[in-house]
Amino acid sequence: MTAIDLQAYMAHVGAAARAAATAMAAAPTAAKNDCLLRLAALIRAERETLQAANAKDVAGAREERGLPAPMVDRLRITDKVVEQMAENCLQVAALPDPVGEMTNLRRRPTGIVVGQMRVPIGVFGMIYESRPNVTIEASSLGIKSGNACILRGGSEALHSNLALWKLVQRALVESGLPATAVQLIETTDREAVGRLIAMPEYVDVIIPRGGKSLIERISREARVPVIKHLDGNCHVYVDAEVDLDLAVKVTDNAKTQKYSPCNAAESLLVHEKSAPQFLPRIGAILAAKGVEMRCDRHAKALLADVPGARLVDAVESDWSEEYLAAVISIKVVASLDEAIAHINRYGSHHTDAILTTNHPNAMRFLREVDSASVMVNASTRFADGFEYGLGAEIGISTDKFHARGPVGLEGLTSMKWVVLGQGEVRT
Amino acid sequence: MTAIDLQAYMAHVGAAARAAATAMAAAPTAAKNDCLLRLAALIRAERETLQAANAKDVAGAREERGLPAPMVDRLRITDKVVEQMAENCLQVAALPDPVGEMTNLRRRPTGIVVGQMRVPIGVFGMIYESRPNVTIEASSLGIKSGNACILRGGSEALHSNLALWKLVQRALVESGLPATAVQLIETTDREAVGRLIAMPEYVDVIIPRGGKSLIERISREARVPVIKHLDGNCHVYVDAEVDLDLAVKVTDNAKTQKYSPCNAAESLLVHEKSAPQFLPRIGAILAAKGVEMRCDRHAKALLADVPGARLVDAVESDWSEEYLAAVISIKVVASLDEAIAHINRYGSHHTDAILTTNHPNAMRFLREVDSASVMVNASTRFADGFEYGLGAEIGISTDKFHARGPVGLEGLTSMKWVVLGQGEVRT
Repeated sequence: MTAIDLQAYMAHVGAAARAAATAMAAAPTAAKNDCLLRLAALIRAERETLQAANAKDVAGAREERGLPAPMVDRLRITDKVVEQMAENCLQVAALPDPVGEMTNLRRRPTGIVVGQMRVPIGVFGMIYESRPNVTIEASSLGIKSGNACILRGGSEALHSNLALWKLVQRALVESGLPATAVQLIETTDREAVGRLIAMPEYVDVIIPRGGKSLIERISREARVPVIKHLDGNCHVYVDAEVDLDLAVKVTDNAKTQKYSPCNAAESLLVHEKSAPQFLPRIGAILAAKGVEMRCDRHAKALLADVPGARLVDAVESDWSEEYLAAVISIKVVASLDEAIAHINRYGSHHTDAILTTNHPNAMRFLREVDSASVMVNASTRFADGFEYGLGAEIGISTDKFHARGPVGLEGLTSMKWVVLGQGEVRT
Repeated sequence: MTAIDLQAYMAHVGAAARAAATAMAAAPTAAKNDCLLRLAALIRAERETLQAANAKDVAGAREERGLPAPMVDRLRITDKVVEQMAENCLQVAALPDPVGEMTNLRRRPTGIVVGQMRVPIGVFGMIYESRPNVTIEASSLGIKSGNACILRGGSEALHSNLALWKLVQRALVESGLPATAVQLIETTDREAVGRLIAMPEYVDVIIPRGGKSLIERISREARVPVIKHLDGNCHVYVDAEVDLDLAVKVTDNAKTQKYSPCNAAESLLVHEKSAPQFLPRIGAILAAKGVEMRCDRHAKALLADVPGARLVDAVESDWSEEYLAAVISIKVVASLDEAIAHINRYGSHHTDAILTTNHPNAMRFLREVDSASVMVNASTRFADGFEYGLGAEIGISTDKFHARGPVGLEGLTSMKWVVLGQGEVRT
């Protein structure tokens, strides 16, 4: 596509989305739910069509692009993925409609009643890689929240995404909703992303999912707000007063239940009072699971006698690193203050937990650690839209503006002011 | 200042603000209120010092800068302004502390309790012109909300702002809070603004107050979120079914109570069914008050017999214009749909009102008009932080992200997730 053609195409897509957003904002809950139920049924009924399209992407990824096996696997629309996508639509249909909710209505001394109403943001752009099921996740949350959305998937998944999108459009039209409420960018031209993130007249917010370099580029160049997280350098801090059994169980879970999620623990801070008892116990478990421990001097000394422990001297960069692997950094601290300062300095403002029996320390940690999720006596692995009861998650934000932490339907809405009067005037 | 010196100076200010923000986030409510009460007392006690500094600015504005009289007047710290600034501090001290509020705590099936906690944003930058009392408004809201702030006032008010800031610093220190919780940029170098809006490592949000060109420049160049509004093209829509007396009273108030505020009405839309009765009545009032009426053909015909009416044919640009003067655009519409579409197309997403006795129409207007404030049977002039019960207002936002409409203490805070567990792990 020439630059001029691309510009015209993207403006056309944007204008259609803006128009659809107006209709979607006023769409009845029943029509939106009907659309999601139809979409679930279509996904199940058209399984073979979807898998035929997907086979082209899988073949291309393996043969032409030569992608590594784990990446090819993430592309696959297996029977299980088909069922997950259908279930996703049913779950979102079952969630309460956030649009139109009115809260905090209060009568003012002048007689007017002032409150707030939840309304859709308008148009969001979703930029993602690999997994084609994100097409359905974003479409279902967009439809339920009354927004229009523009999807830009990875070029390696184009056939799969196009096939899924056709089903979304059928469901929209059959429910009386505009087909353009969900649009997929049909060109693989890389410049399309550059346009999508720089059309504030058509797109209100961008939600990227993918590698760090993609998200960094989008954040830097976007001319609209971006809901994103870059890193998940999550901490577990074991306080001076602590239930040691609880601390061992929770730390183990936060680090080893899965290594790849962004809410897995990457750094362990231990108060010097509990370190002599705690570190050898957790060290034995981590050693048995083959987790490499990057230690400060104090921690290393306390772990020295653990059989089979893989101990490495931590360097400065270890305190900031998100390993997403069987590696953890470990540091002994002299106080809660030191722990909080360390987390606020080296952390990624994602999720951090204190394990303690001391109430004032728990409350200080909750208040002073500047992260999207702060926890007391629970595994960082709970930082997730489903676990928090949001029903579904479109992304995670480590920024402080608008949505913070796991972002569900509410993060795709905005609160406007409503004033209900009976002819009041200002004097 | 050389470019390198300026860069170093701004980085120094930014780093000090970031450090102060950590202390302010943990500051006790009592210390913050004590600071505000001390500041009120200092402002009253140091009236003469403030007015002596202010006299230099006023003389400079008149003699050296040759500013027009209304602009010079806005600079003046009269006895009344001194009392208003002291009162402002007392009012903010009396507001509830938003920091630490925990809401929506719910137990999940896993056993963890999940909720949200309100915390300060961190550091905000306030960029403003003329009125030195904004120094006190921004400082008081910043202190109460537990943020650090960096103030950049107009160069024409520098002596006044410096004198006020010294009092703020004294109050901070005497209450045991960091003096750097409020910093004023002491150089009049215009490049300082360019740096302030492009230091995401130190500044979390920018709040500009001033002329449209300043705000446009800041929005375009800022590398952090901006809380702003550009225009207030507010509409009153008089529906087909309406209490005519109410409609006349409210429309008159919305347009003529004051011409200069951003929440004054600039455009009047009237349903064709009520127009023959309504327009001559409101036209007579507007004519008597000397308000020029820029009409479409239909409205002009209905207003033709109003004695003394200044009728002008509206052109396309009239539908978008914010007059801030004794001028109003008037259009007859055929339906509620046309009114909503017109407002969403030509409006500024600030404040719009419907006057109607029809409930479904009122609810559709509230839901479908895409503005920060939407009203039924009330004057647009009510769109204001004090009228809404926020206690004080740091600005108004016509964006949909984060704060929308009048922004008070809550707009300077963020909601993070808190998880309270008893050793739960994810399975």
